[in-house]
Amino acid sequence: MTPQSASAQPHAARATESASAVPAPAVPVTALLTDQYELTMVQAALASGAAGRRCVFEVFTRHLPAGRRYGVVAGTGRMLEGLAAFRFGGAEIDWLRGRGIVDEPTLEFLADYRFSGDIHGYAEGEVFLPDSPVLRVEASFAEACLLETYVLSVLNHDSAIASAASRMTVAAGDRPCVEMGSRRTQEFSAVAAARAAAVAGFTATSNLEAGRRWGLPTLGTAAHAFTLLHDSEEEAFEAQVAAFGPGTTLLVDTYDVETAVRRAAAIAGPELGAVRLDSGDLVEQAGEVRALLDSLGNTGTRIIVSSDLDEHAIARLQSAPVDSYGVGTKLVTGSGSPTAAMVYKLVARTDDDGQSIPVAKNAPGKSSLGGVKHPLRSLDESGRATAELIGVGAAPQTHGQRTRELMVPLVRRGEIAAEHTGESGVAQARRRHAASLAELPPAAKRLQDGDPVLPTIFS
Amino acid sequence: MTPQSASAQPHAARATESASAVPAPAVPVTALLTDQYELTMVQAALASGAAGRRCVFEVFTRHLPAGRRYGVVAGTGRMLEGLAAFRFGGAEIDWLRGRGIVDEPTLEFLADYRFSGDIHGYAEGEVFLPDSPVLRVEASFAEACLLETYVLSVLNHDSAIASAASRMTVAAGDRPCVEMGSRRTQEFSAVAAARAAAVAGFTATSNLEAGRRWGLPTLGTAAHAFTLLHDSEEEAFEAQVAAFGPGTTLLVDTYDVETAVRRAAAIAGPELGAVRLDSGDLVEQAGEVRALLDSLGNTGTRIIVSSDLDEHAIARLQSAPVDSYGVGTKLVTGSGSPTAAMVYKLVARTDDDGQSIPVAKNAPGKSSLGGVKHPLRSLDESGRATAELIGVGAAPQTHGQRTRELMVPLVRRGEIAAEHTGESGVAQARRRHAASLAELPPAAKRLQDGDPVLPTIFS
Repeated sequence: MTPQSASAQPHAARATESASAVPAPAVPVTALLTDQYELTMVQAALASGAAGRRCVFEVFTRHLPAGRRYGVVAGTGRMLEGLAAFRFGGAEIDWLRGRGIVDEPTLEFLADYRFSGDIHGYAEGEVFLPDSPVLRVEASFAEACLLETYVLSVLNHDSAIASAASRMTVAAGDRPCVEMGSRRTQEFSAVAAARAAAVAGFTATSNLEAGRRWGLPTLGTAAHAFTLLHDSEEEAFEAQVAAFGPGTTLLVDTYDVETAVRRAAAIAGPELGAVRLDSGDLVEQAGEVRALLDSLGNTGTRIIVSSDLDEHAIARLQSAPVDSYGVGTKLVTGSGSPTAAMVYKLVARTDDDGQSIPVAKNAPGKSSLGGVKHPLRSLDESGRATAELIGVGAAPQTHGQRTRELMVPLVRRGEIAAEHTGESGVAQARRRHAASLAELPPAAKRLQDGDPVLPTIFS
Repeated sequence: MTPQSASAQPHAARATESASAVPAPAVPVTALLTDQYELTMVQAALASGAAGRRCVFEVFTRHLPAGRRYGVVAGTGRMLEGLAAFRFGGAEIDWLRGRGIVDEPTLEFLADYRFSGDIHGYAEGEVFLPDSPVLRVEASFAEACLLETYVLSVLNHDSAIASAASRMTVAAGDRPCVEMGSRRTQEFSAVAAARAAAVAGFTATSNLEAGRRWGLPTLGTAAHAFTLLHDSEEEAFEAQVAAFGPGTTLLVDTYDVETAVRRAAAIAGPELGAVRLDSGDLVEQAGEVRALLDSLGNTGTRIIVSSDLDEHAIARLQSAPVDSYGVGTKLVTGSGSPTAAMVYKLVARTDDDGQSIPVAKNAPGKSSLGGVKHPLRSLDESGRATAELIGVGAAPQTHGQRTRELMVPLVRRGEIAAEHTGESGVAQARRRHAASLAELPPAAKRLQDGDPVLPTIFS
């Protein structure tokens, strides 16, 4: 992964790219990251004889978060990485037996469990809309049912973060956004959030584990505590510049900003990489600090801001002389929408004669459409997306329009398509997101509340 | 952990208690679950000579989520479990070196790192208010600084979930609440959320890994997919009852609720454990279903509801004949407040003479109060909490009021107090929460927006 604009990164805070061949740590066993009922359903279906019926489950959301124009599929690669570790080992089987959660025939099935079906899905980074069938899992009931909770946990979280992140990078335009939210979300969510942000165009993260696992560029220099630790701000700045050179980023709002900027410029000289503002009226301060830096001869010193930013704050700051945005809490909590609200629904299954039958529940407000969905995105002559076309049980009617495939194979007969995982998977998803976003009508980039940017047409 | 009311649990859905001696899986290395700047600050402080200064960091929040009356400290035990694994092993050191993130002297320090300081904090489950010093970390700067991101990630997430969960169990009164939100949050957050919900009084969880790791009671029977898998609802109910006995919980809203309830009663008989409603107008439906069940002779069959519940929906359902609540999305996303917004601030450090000096930054809107805080909760003669008393640099003035200690030792000279970890830690936190909540003024239990339920008095 390459930052959008390498020159926009201050020197000592420059993203340190992957350079190491150290293998990522093994993913822990994921098979108990699930709801108990996935296992009890398998037991009852093994007993009833229905466990082997070939099933199609689809993942979709009934609605976007209020006012959002589009969502971003993310987590696909991470989900596939964990799927390889979705096994019930001896420790898991012993625990399930000790608790009496399922019976011995079910434990035998689980001990041998290895997903052997097919999974297709929207490519990671792809734009989705309400009812978009973002994932399709085809396998026996027992095999596919077991994955429900795990698959949803990964996709719901990562897609929520990427969907928020995309609005932030859209608002920031050419200015880099850096993910800094680890402390405001669960410690492993933080790692996943850094990855999802990268899919949606963030250029770097503060999170080291995300850097290790997916080769993401990482950033970071110092916090207020470093200044407070020393006997004076001057000593702290001197210590930091001694350690990292003048190209470092100095945090200038521990005491008085103007004094700090003057001190920073005096200590680091014209090579000072950047100053960071983490509080106050950032629009006003950025203008004052820019003028002050320029007056001191620090015309190349950049300004980084990082105080409770969201997409709206970033948009307001676009008129200010800011060079990059550090985004924390609002990113890792999905900017008001911490889950993508996706569901995993059985839409077709075979009967005793092996015929596939569309199925759907009829619960009020939660009814869904039975049958396997076949999605395409229609495009006008200039390549601009015009609609989501969804065929139910067959390819959608296109009326001669130009269309683009949305589904890609992710797992074939249990074999995971490795190109979607690891570092290359993130890089590929990032490119997919940029391309899909560029194809949308201009209304997609409006931050104010509105309807989904594309209509969804069933046929 | 014992469910609040064992009799309120339907038979086959009964919480399966810890019965196994299988050890929990090892916690993975946690030391890279951190922001890069924690490490670069250590490098600069090692070089400046300030790394060894004895420091006190405090964790607190400047404000509760809008309208909330109190917060709940959670994650303490989980944080201590991960602290034991906060080590930089060979793989971590090699990766840091390969990336060039810190220099060799810093890598040497990290390779030997083992927290050797003291940590005190509010007991897990304790009620907190704005400015409550919920955690105090005392160590050298280098040792304490490194823990910032990790400690905040755990406490911010788990406290946000427990704070929402507490409002839900308050609203539910004697009716059990069951945590079912795994699919709507990141897969490891789900495990932590189940634990935090238990601290705040939830009686069980659907999450198996949480059951394994902390002995939490787990629940679950079947989803709509199980009904759709079979050729008829009748066959599905028969299969489930055959597998789990009549005491199971049947999901009755896949097609028509009335038909399903009649079918369920006919198939399982009067011993039918429970029916679950997952959609529609639950207040109205619960009344109709109760009357129908009673008319069919199923007076002992319970009604479980589970459709996008939050504390307000639970409060509305209290007048309906519902027996227990399954809570998902709104619980695991903190019911609108997915982070507790806690910060980790340096409040005192030694100078070159070894004298401790209070320190604080002065950033607009983010200024904090220097000096070590000493909290007590004051109580009236009946034992009702009246205020949070916080002494700065010394014990608070109590003016002869009855008070209660809030801080407990969690780590002494690097030794973790094991009673706060594992299953016993959760049980202890659950008791602490119940006791602290019972002590609050009645306004604490109001769900409508309001001010913090106790004033905070500094002295």
